[in-house]
Amino acid sequence: MNDDRTGAAMDFPDLRAFFAPQSFALVGATGDATKFGGRAIKLTQEFGYRGRLYPVNPRGGTIRGLTAYPSVRDLPEAPDHVGIVVAADRVMAVLEDCAQRGAKFATVLTSGFAETGTEQGRRLQAALTEFARRSGVRIMGPNCNGFINFVERVVFASTATVSAAPRPTGYIGIASQSGGLGMVNAMWRAQEAGLGVNHVVTCGNDADLDILDFAHFMVEDAATRVIMLIIERVPNGPKLFALARKAARAAKPLFVVKLGRTEEGRRAAASHTGAMSGSDAVHDAAFRQAGIIRCVDCNEMYEAGMLLGSGRLPGGRGASSLSISGGNVVMLTDLGAVHGIAWPRYGDKTQEDLARLMPSYGSVSNPTDLTTAAMASPDMFQRVLDTIAADASVDVMIPIVTFGTKADIDYTIAAAERSSKPYALLWSGACIDVPELRPRDIVRRGVPVYRDVLECVRAVGRAMDYGDFLRRARATPRPRRPHGIDPDGARSLLARAGEGLTEQQSKAVLAAYGIRVTQERLATGAEEAGAIAAAFGSPVALKISSADIAHKTEAGGVRLNVTAQAAQSVFADIVRSAKDYRAGARIEGVLVQEMARPGLELMLGVSRDAVFGPVVAVALGGIQVEALADVVYRVAPVTRDEAARMLQELRGRRLLESVRGAPPRDVDALCDAIERLSWLAIDLVDRVLEVDINPLLVYERGAGVLAVDGLVVPADGGGGA
Amino acid sequence: MNDDRTGAAMDFPDLRAFFAPQSFALVGATGDATKFGGRAIKLTQEFGYRGRLYPVNPRGGTIRGLTAYPSVRDLPEAPDHVGIVVAADRVMAVLEDCAQRGAKFATVLTSGFAETGTEQGRRLQAALTEFARRSGVRIMGPNCNGFINFVERVVFASTATVSAAPRPTGYIGIASQSGGLGMVNAMWRAQEAGLGVNHVVTCGNDADLDILDFAHFMVEDAATRVIMLIIERVPNGPKLFALARKAARAAKPLFVVKLGRTEEGRRAAASHTGAMSGSDAVHDAAFRQAGIIRCVDCNEMYEAGMLLGSGRLPGGRGASSLSISGGNVVMLTDLGAVHGIAWPRYGDKTQEDLARLMPSYGSVSNPTDLTTAAMASPDMFQRVLDTIAADASVDVMIPIVTFGTKADIDYTIAAAERSSKPYALLWSGACIDVPELRPRDIVRRGVPVYRDVLECVRAVGRAMDYGDFLRRARATPRPRRPHGIDPDGARSLLARAGEGLTEQQSKAVLAAYGIRVTQERLATGAEEAGAIAAAFGSPVALKISSADIAHKTEAGGVRLNVTAQAAQSVFADIVRSAKDYRAGARIEGVLVQEMARPGLELMLGVSRDAVFGPVVAVALGGIQVEALADVVYRVAPVTRDEAARMLQELRGRRLLESVRGAPPRDVDALCDAIERLSWLAIDLVDRVLEVDINPLLVYERGAGVLAVDGLVVPADGGGGA
Repeated sequence: MNDDRTGAAMDFPDLRAFFAPQSFALVGATGDATKFGGRAIKLTQEFGYRGRLYPVNPRGGTIRGLTAYPSVRDLPEAPDHVGIVVAADRVMAVLEDCAQRGAKFATVLTSGFAETGTEQGRRLQAALTEFARRSGVRIMGPNCNGFINFVERVVFASTATVSAAPRPTGYIGIASQSGGLGMVNAMWRAQEAGLGVNHVVTCGNDADLDILDFAHFMVEDAATRVIMLIIERVPNGPKLFALARKAARAAKPLFVVKLGRTEEGRRAAASHTGAMSGSDAVHDAAFRQAGIIRCVDCNEMYEAGMLLGSGRLPGGRGASSLSISGGNVVMLTDLGAVHGIAWPRYGDKTQEDLARLMPSYGSVSNPTDLTTAAMASPDMFQRVLDTIAADASVDVMIPIVTFGTKADIDYTIAAAERSSKPYALLWSGACIDVPELRPRDIVRRGVPVYRDVLECVRAVGRAMDYGDFLRRARATPRPRRPHGIDPDGARSLLARAGEGLTEQQSKAVLAAYGIRVTQERLATGAEEAGAIAAAFGSPVALKISSADIAHKTEAGGVRLNVTAQAAQSVFADIVRSAKDYRAGARIEGVLVQEMARPGLELMLGVSRDAVFGPVVAVALGGIQVEALADVVYRVAPVTRDEAARMLQELRGRRLLESVRGAPPRDVDALCDAIERLSWLAIDLVDRVLEVDINPLLVYERGAGVLAVDGLVVPADGGGGA
Repeated sequence: MNDDRTGAAMDFPDLRAFFAPQSFALVGATGDATKFGGRAIKLTQEFGYRGRLYPVNPRGGTIRGLTAYPSVRDLPEAPDHVGIVVAADRVMAVLEDCAQRGAKFATVLTSGFAETGTEQGRRLQAALTEFARRSGVRIMGPNCNGFINFVERVVFASTATVSAAPRPTGYIGIASQSGGLGMVNAMWRAQEAGLGVNHVVTCGNDADLDILDFAHFMVEDAATRVIMLIIERVPNGPKLFALARKAARAAKPLFVVKLGRTEEGRRAAASHTGAMSGSDAVHDAAFRQAGIIRCVDCNEMYEAGMLLGSGRLPGGRGASSLSISGGNVVMLTDLGAVHGIAWPRYGDKTQEDLARLMPSYGSVSNPTDLTTAAMASPDMFQRVLDTIAADASVDVMIPIVTFGTKADIDYTIAAAERSSKPYALLWSGACIDVPELRPRDIVRRGVPVYRDVLECVRAVGRAMDYGDFLRRARATPRPRRPHGIDPDGARSLLARAGEGLTEQQSKAVLAAYGIRVTQERLATGAEEAGAIAAAFGSPVALKISSADIAHKTEAGGVRLNVTAQAAQSVFADIVRSAKDYRAGARIEGVLVQEMARPGLELMLGVSRDAVFGPVVAVALGGIQVEALADVVYRVAPVTRDEAARMLQELRGRRLLESVRGAPPRDVDALCDAIERLSWLAIDLVDRVLEVDINPLLVYERGAGVLAVDGLVVPADGGGGA
């Protein structure tokens, strides 16, 4: 488990013969085009499949000019891929035939499996999964809408979105658990927007091969540069991370629409797919951590995908824009800021050049409002465009055209083509002199076009996020176990503690991972009390330890805020008071406890996510803030840098800075504690179910953190020796 | 001021002759179509202006077949409206001619005024404003892109978005301070989406007539039902409220895109328009309060406008949907919840009817997943649509079509037409049998169409918000001064206090408005101390009051948490201690202060917004929460209901409920305090600049609130008698 999480290779199947089979059999094929099996084989044939196509129909004969075989067993060769559209209760028999004939892959479109939510459906699906494991025939589906390979012209699908008419290919791959969303909202709409799609799978229930396997094929496919995923449930958290690492190495962005953002959506998904998904907040964190770009709706994926598909990565968060419409410039600045887009001041050279071009404008700001005055000089737009695009502080160019001339649009396309910086054309209107020109015509030429300001800045912001992520991923080492941890010590503490841990035992486990906890030790003599207090290095509380004294305070047996110097004499006072209070009481000694100085209260925790496994959480503490649910998650383990990013996501992050004269907090120590806790979660995953440190006091810079209270909840049976 | 805010009528000009002038003069007209004055008169003529059109050009002669007049003074009649496109330094002379000839309206497209940010530009604009006040000629602009009346075919504009080709009219009016955003992003795009626009103004600098005047014309225009505003700066807060009240009475939604959401946007707007706008948070609150639907981008206005333009108002927040695509159903549920859309369980009658239609589906959930099984029975979609639309719990219907037949789409249109409930068609794909059919064709038939789930639920959510607002506006009385306030008392306290108020004086002002404050009174004898404490009805603090004793605690002169019974003897103790501590000290008496029991800490405040005037704010208190900036604003005055909605907008609103075993807080008393404070802000607007109550303790239900600390900052000169 640990190794998966920390980056060891994970096996993904080779799906080349799945997507581009030399031979394809279609079980359920018929000559009757009013039936699904008839439409399917017609589509496959007309789409231009160049391999050997075998209709399978118990009646044999000829279908659409091809010899039909009664069974897969009767095929003249072992087929690379078998498409299956027979009734649910016949699927297993067909699959057994596939195994017998040596088929590599099968795609089961048939529904009536786990998605029905019935016992029978679940049993059928379990049998299918078990068959795949046993036989080695790898299966897509069941309950799926099939796949399309636009590159090699292979289709096996239940969809009206594909026709014989060729669509240009490009750089997009799409894998979706939902048929409708994958083939319509994502694929067809991306094509309509002028983009080329290479491969599409809608993989349904993921009983064997899952959406991550298909995405992996797309990551490996040379022509594919942008992968869009529509996920109802993540099949395997660590596998998603492994996929994301491969994608990052290839600099291929993964976009995802993950259903189930809301409780209502999760219920609807459960009733649609028969599977409950884990916490959305954890999914959100995991995607961010893995550099997967989460979108709310399908169109947002190709809108942002257009920008990254060119292979031009934003070098930073600086953008520049120009327009004759001041309103558009203001709007772009305004909404750009919401998406983290900066508008750097142009450099001196740029300003000088602009001053020559636009003598009456004074100092030129970014974005650049040319005003309608620019309409008087037809090449003003082009010259200013070149000038600001050359500015070193500009990472992304966003030229704005409302109603523009063909010349301006063509010039923008040419500028985009020769630039190493990504261009996003914000074109809200039409072409004055060539009114039939449409955004898709420009997208087809490789330049992203946006109609509305918000969609534009959202796409640019996401592309910048991805640039940031890739640079970070390249610069940051893998998570590594920090020094000064004692996993064996923690394990033996857990073993000794049995089924439940006390606060003191819990803190001992935390301490074994190098997380500072308040300390306490029993002193049996005054000198020892002084030594313990001195060792703690901070004021202590002294408490009489006697089974015969229930009310310690009443007995004069408690003293707070005692310095190490005073501890020895206070020890004597306490013991005397206790004896005065109750003659003959058995005194075991005096408990010397570190006094926690007040600090900023945070909470750290570990929990177990159904999909992603051990998750670490940080939140601001105190009852008021708890009500605000200001919690940030990450899948364990995390690096210190990742921990620092967690803190930046807290709404109350300002509290870590200097607030109201209070000094800034020890963020380094806090990140260190988060990192250590995340490794505890990984190392002890078989032993520890949950950890709750509340409060963790965070002191001023240099003064560290202190776990004042902590609870470790052992995993089932984890406490046993 | 008060009356404006509390709803008295505000005068708006009659702009019928502005939009539909019987006679229109164009100053700067020329026969040379390469010049702006040439293009403008050509456009006006070709657009089909049916009134009397007078070109004005110093050279006279004939322009495009019309007699040209050397000056407005020479016109054969007093023109209703004069369009001006001459250079900035000639504008004033032309306007004087307009006044002399008795013109009613002038539109100045010329730029070079306040938007330049120069002293000269500001001076020119001030002269223009002063001229309008003096002469009675009402002016639009300067620095504007003109207006279009699609109904009576009048145009005077600098835009490529309008041509002689007629566009269908409809129910939309657009007023924008920005030319590009108004005429391209809003108008042209709405038309492209299949919507009809009646009137458009892009009004630029608002030197005389402002955007609210134009919006008011649209509210009064019978055919216009939806008004879209693009605002760089609100010219007048109370006037916006007056406009919004009229619009609400007419049930005509006002949509707004307000620029300057971010600091960056506000700076860009300032450099574009030469004017700084007020706080965005206050704008946001004011829009919500006035029922104005704020959108982020221009397209969102017509997307939501489509739904309300039909005149069918959502009767509540319940929606229903159906699709053969389960993925779309999940997505709609999921994102719908984000926008406050509920999916009510179908009633028994509906379930029975559905059971007959869909025997194998079991209990049918909402939204309804027909599954691809429905493709087998062609009229399943239609029958289910009728059944669920008839369910009483359904307020809005959202049928989903991915790739659908013409029959299904036509049926949906017909169902929408005969229904009293609004329909939103979510159509992500194409029409299978009539591929050329486009969303705009359906929008033209009056049925809103959305391509993407997110834009659909956003529009539906906003339409529901508007329905909620209208019902609330009809049910809720105007804000009224609460009982038990003493404005005269507060005024005399302020007058006496002079330039600054102490905490005690500030609290006295709050108390005059019926806001409970901690009390303190000087007791000069033991019996009096007891009486004061008894009158407070809660434990008190007693503090020696002596100019000769600086360190009261050291002198034994402070006692906390004293009961009324004990107050008399504690008085004696304190005086004795003080005399022991310092013989001969002059003792004035003992200050008896109400002890504040701990409660939930909130902050209430009043501040002055540059646009909207006195604003009341509520926030959670305590240092940690302050860092989260969880603040909610409203323009004063507010009703108790509005105060309750403010609390619902607090991120930490859960703290007002029962949290961790603590009892729920006295929300009624809190709303009462907010209401009272908002009236203080209105009544004393000439005297009070700011109020800060921090903390206001909110106790358990029934136990009220208590202002522990308060500061009233007088307005300049407000402290004078």
